[in-house]
Amino acid sequence: MTQQRKKLLIDTDPGVDDAMAILAAFNSPEVEVIGLTTVFGNVYTQTATRNAFKLLELAEMTQVPVAEGAHVTLNGTPKTWVADFVHGTDGFGNINIDIAEGTKWSGCAAEFIVQTVRENPGEVSILALGPLTNIAIAMQLDSSVARNAAEIVVLGGAFFVNGNVNPAAEANMYGDPEAADFVLGQGGNIKIVGLDVTHSCQFTGTELRGLQDRGRFGTFLSEITAFYLKYHKDSYDMDSVYVHDPSALAAVLQPALFTWRFGQVRVLTESVATGMTVMDVGLKRWNNPHGWTDRANVQVAVAVNAAKTTTMLLERMAA
Amino acid sequence: MTQQRKKLLIDTDPGVDDAMAILAAFNSPEVEVIGLTTVFGNVYTQTATRNAFKLLELAEMTQVPVAEGAHVTLNGTPKTWVADFVHGTDGFGNINIDIAEGTKWSGCAAEFIVQTVRENPGEVSILALGPLTNIAIAMQLDSSVARNAAEIVVLGGAFFVNGNVNPAAEANMYGDPEAADFVLGQGGNIKIVGLDVTHSCQFTGTELRGLQDRGRFGTFLSEITAFYLKYHKDSYDMDSVYVHDPSALAAVLQPALFTWRFGQVRVLTESVATGMTVMDVGLKRWNNPHGWTDRANVQVAVAVNAAKTTTMLLERMAA
Repeated sequence: MTQQRKKLLIDTDPGVDDAMAILAAFNSPEVEVIGLTTVFGNVYTQTATRNAFKLLELAEMTQVPVAEGAHVTLNGTPKTWVADFVHGTDGFGNINIDIAEGTKWSGCAAEFIVQTVRENPGEVSILALGPLTNIAIAMQLDSSVARNAAEIVVLGGAFFVNGNVNPAAEANMYGDPEAADFVLGQGGNIKIVGLDVTHSCQFTGTELRGLQDRGRFGTFLSEITAFYLKYHKDSYDMDSVYVHDPSALAAVLQPALFTWRFGQVRVLTESVATGMTVMDVGLKRWNNPHGWTDRANVQVAVAVNAAKTTTMLLERMAA
Repeated sequence: MTQQRKKLLIDTDPGVDDAMAILAAFNSPEVEVIGLTTVFGNVYTQTATRNAFKLLELAEMTQVPVAEGAHVTLNGTPKTWVADFVHGTDGFGNINIDIAEGTKWSGCAAEFIVQTVRENPGEVSILALGPLTNIAIAMQLDSSVARNAAEIVVLGGAFFVNGNVNPAAEANMYGDPEAADFVLGQGGNIKIVGLDVTHSCQFTGTELRGLQDRGRFGTFLSEITAFYLKYHKDSYDMDSVYVHDPSALAAVLQPALFTWRFGQVRVLTESVATGMTVMDVGLKRWNNPHGWTDRANVQVAVAVNAAKTTTMLLERMAA
């Protein structure tokens, strides 16, 4: 089988689970990683960029360009907190690793996205693992990005389950709700992987510790996930972790592992539930227009084959 | 068995399904209806009051007091639309019945609620079938209403399913979101029956037409539900109706038909999703305070024995 590899651009805020997803991508024959763009979220943007270089160094893929992205939200709000209680202040579980060096791409993340999609129309898969600020700016720079990307797979949202920042909101949507509400209304082939499915996918502590000495990345992934396991124990009383970013990668690699539902999505940009994702699943012919009327369709993952997904991802992480 | 009948005060905006619930209540040995209070929602408040008198006339229960309630929302917004496309402009499916006469209780609905709960501390079940304006005003008049009512069973909300006014909001919550957000935060024994369960309970067209000539109320209920059936056909392509208000009555009569989940609920009072109900189901120990923190617990119906519920309700409606 000589199926063409998908050209994969990853927008990321690494982040323990970003590291899992990105390193797994380098062990995945379905994709060729053609660039990393960085954003705030799990960490500040500068840390995200530094960590992107570190992941490329580990993968011996330092030829892959890294474009640094937004430091503030789409409406200009400075980032004043990061999820250091989830990922450690360094984004990698506070394991005190050497900092990697690298030369950033000359433009910003949004410019890199625009250029890459223009040069490869219909061929670029964008995997968005952080707040959607860079994607939104790219779409504002060039409105053809939405339709000319092969797909945009977004890790974020909590549709028919509670959020993880608060009962309403998932962290990536909460991180820049205006950007998210904008991006998800732009049309194109957008697929959303939210907590509805990522909470069904778990790696156990035993599985993560078992990565030690396995393959190219196993020891690193085993070490950085110790902190992440403790966060899940403290917050959810679990001896495992939810599989967020790697599940979104799985949706790029093997979309048939998920059940997709078409609908219109809004992200709330105000109220006590700012950052909440609300989907019209299409059961009703509405009597009056409302905020979802005439909105572009997206696909939302509503179910997942969790066993196959986590097994596949662990294999890639251990290879 | 000589179980004591619950004293039942029904706050209502009749409404086809309000009529089903109220008439079924008069055929239910578990409850004694001790008053009706009226509110806008399915119809304007004046129509609701007129229809309340009509239901008492049909039931030969004209000794039951009717107290007219709010004409505007808690924050003073005049009611500018009603669900005439659901219930008919008369609230009873436009069947052109004679208007009933009656003498309203001397005070407003909120005063009636306060007085009734004071006179029967710990004994009054309040069944709220419309927007929560009257209940909110009663609680503002007397903060002991919440704890001194035996229970407050609220028909409203859409927690992990779409709304029915728009993808976010259910009609009663949408009708007065400020009142709802206030009431659901006041503590006491509040139970919420939302679309998550009422969409599981359906009466078929055959069942509703079959009420003709059955019992005291069958012909009336058969006639008023024709319009309601057509609305469901037009909006949902169904040959049946969702059982909203009668399901909330069922939760008073036989609460064990439902699965209840404790949690904190907020009702959004702004954003594109105004009127949306969002519940913290309690899976996470949150890292930071948010809009649900320290909020009083309520119980939300998350599942229902639909077959037993609809069978029981149809028996009461046909008796």
